[in-house]
Amino acid sequence: MPSQSQHSEFELIARYFTPSPPGPDAGVALGVGDDCTLLVPAAGRQLAVSVDTSVAGIHYPEDAPADAVGHRALAVSLSDLAAMGARARWCLMALTLAEADEAWLEGFSRGFRALAEASGAALVGGDVTRGATAIGVTVMGEVAPGAALTRHGGRPGDLVAVTGALGGGAGGLALWQRGERAPSHPLLVRYLRPQPRLAAGEALVGLASAAIDVSDGLLADLGHILERSGVGATLAPEALPLAEGLVAALGEEGARQAALTGGDDYELLVTIPGERVDEASARLAALGLPLTVIGRLEAEPGLRGVEDQGQGGWQHFHGRSSPGGSL
Amino acid sequence: MPSQSQHSEFELIARYFTPSPPGPDAGVALGVGDDCTLLVPAAGRQLAVSVDTSVAGIHYPEDAPADAVGHRALAVSLSDLAAMGARARWCLMALTLAEADEAWLEGFSRGFRALAEASGAALVGGDVTRGATAIGVTVMGEVAPGAALTRHGGRPGDLVAVTGALGGGAGGLALWQRGERAPSHPLLVRYLRPQPRLAAGEALVGLASAAIDVSDGLLADLGHILERSGVGATLAPEALPLAEGLVAALGEEGARQAALTGGDDYELLVTIPGERVDEASARLAALGLPLTVIGRLEAEPGLRGVEDQGQGGWQHFHGRSSPGGSL
Repeated sequence: MPSQSQHSEFELIARYFTPSPPGPDAGVALGVGDDCTLLVPAAGRQLAVSVDTSVAGIHYPEDAPADAVGHRALAVSLSDLAAMGARARWCLMALTLAEADEAWLEGFSRGFRALAEASGAALVGGDVTRGATAIGVTVMGEVAPGAALTRHGGRPGDLVAVTGALGGGAGGLALWQRGERAPSHPLLVRYLRPQPRLAAGEALVGLASAAIDVSDGLLADLGHILERSGVGATLAPEALPLAEGLVAALGEEGARQAALTGGDDYELLVTIPGERVDEASARLAALGLPLTVIGRLEAEPGLRGVEDQGQGGWQHFHGRSSPGGSL
Repeated sequence: MPSQSQHSEFELIARYFTPSPPGPDAGVALGVGDDCTLLVPAAGRQLAVSVDTSVAGIHYPEDAPADAVGHRALAVSLSDLAAMGARARWCLMALTLAEADEAWLEGFSRGFRALAEASGAALVGGDVTRGATAIGVTVMGEVAPGAALTRHGGRPGDLVAVTGALGGGAGGLALWQRGERAPSHPLLVRYLRPQPRLAAGEALVGLASAAIDVSDGLLADLGHILERSGVGATLAPEALPLAEGLVAALGEEGARQAALTGGDDYELLVTIPGERVDEASARLAALGLPLTVIGRLEAEPGLRGVEDQGQGGWQHFHGRSSPGGSL
């Protein structure tokens, strides 16, 4: 039964989460405070939409810094827009909270808002309710018709490439579980504050033949592209770009496993015709982001070049992740 | 740590929730199976969006029928589109589940899908994860620019009217808590399977000056209109249309309290210039829905015609509802 103190708590939440009035370019005809928000889609664009839920103790450690929880809950959804080459426009947050702790809320809100602002995704609405802590984030972006990067466009002969570096998600979690708390440790930054590759996704439109973000692990996510594109691939595991500090933290074998199967990296995994790789690399270099070729698509189904990964590595690095996934 | 059996459970979930390929008129350029869904908004329309989360044991009884839980989770979000006069187009479901029971999932899916189909809201994506059971539903609808019904358009002299009947949400919950389980009991139907008034909302576009759906209770929701419109009102409580069976279930005083403060009715509460009431009534009659005038807006702030309701009634009928609300 709602008590007065609970009402006050939710007034507190409203204070932290009532979005600022959006700017004139935000495409918002009617902001929060009504039954719905009214948005103005750009003429002639398609709308890319996705939703992801982050559950405390399953998708992130219960003791993770509040601002990292806010950042991360939005980042994992924005990463889906990046993987489509869409431009982020709006987001909605469905926040379920076990308790309303002001310091936590302040941090959570700060992390969420900072990324929303940096990514151009205006927070246009949401819902706050009581229950086991979970954050559902719906993101909406725009992309020109026919321009979206999908999972099904890979063709035999295309190269397989990845942005940035891999293994940081799993490496950072492993360090966190060992008690590492230095906020600037590069692996903790990777795990707690992943950067959705929105600019890279837009830059790869017209060049990449297929794309996905690395959330479940490189092998699993590449598997989605192979399945949807009806192709196979050979990988060169020695070419994998490893996150800074990963070998020091996990050793050679652990680092390789983390990069192949660890997940939570939120880099973009793309396939790209060989003649376009230089242009793609140049565009990403302008964003300060490396693009590394790690394999090649082939007509023959299946994945070659990596020994059987079994489930051991996967479970090792996914002990904190939920089973489940997107529809 | 995800076990094989958990993976199988989530395959089960995917089987029930992978949306059917949308029809040619659904405005879906790319359906589920990629990082995002790609939608095609109608040219020149605004997009109305809203998200609501339903938590087991807070927003609905843990032992509610599974199909009612699925229906209800979608209905409460669609009701927000109805209150804007928007046409439902798409929905996304973020489902967090404590366990995957096949019979429950079958029922939940059936209830959700049936309402999605009936309301024209194509299920275009979502997310399934493990955690305390909660259902977040994002809905998207379309409305012509300037046509949306809002909370801020009420003017002194406008009449206050409500669609359908009130008190059924609270009355149905009270019966459920007493052990009533007859699925066709009109109050249980009202509480467990509320009908979002989408057609009524669209029919009232151009006639109503303000609108909101009755989710928190008539007085609370009218209060939102008064606040946003900068007006006051006098109500005629004796005019309130009471849900069928409500007086028999709760007595005269209980029925009146349920209608004033009970919430969960998901009827539309509108303000409307007097000269348009006949036209509005005729349009709703064509939909089989009564429209009842229950008061009048006035320039003087405040609400008159009802004695002080205190918090007793509200708490009585909202014991199961969460504190919180929309941003």
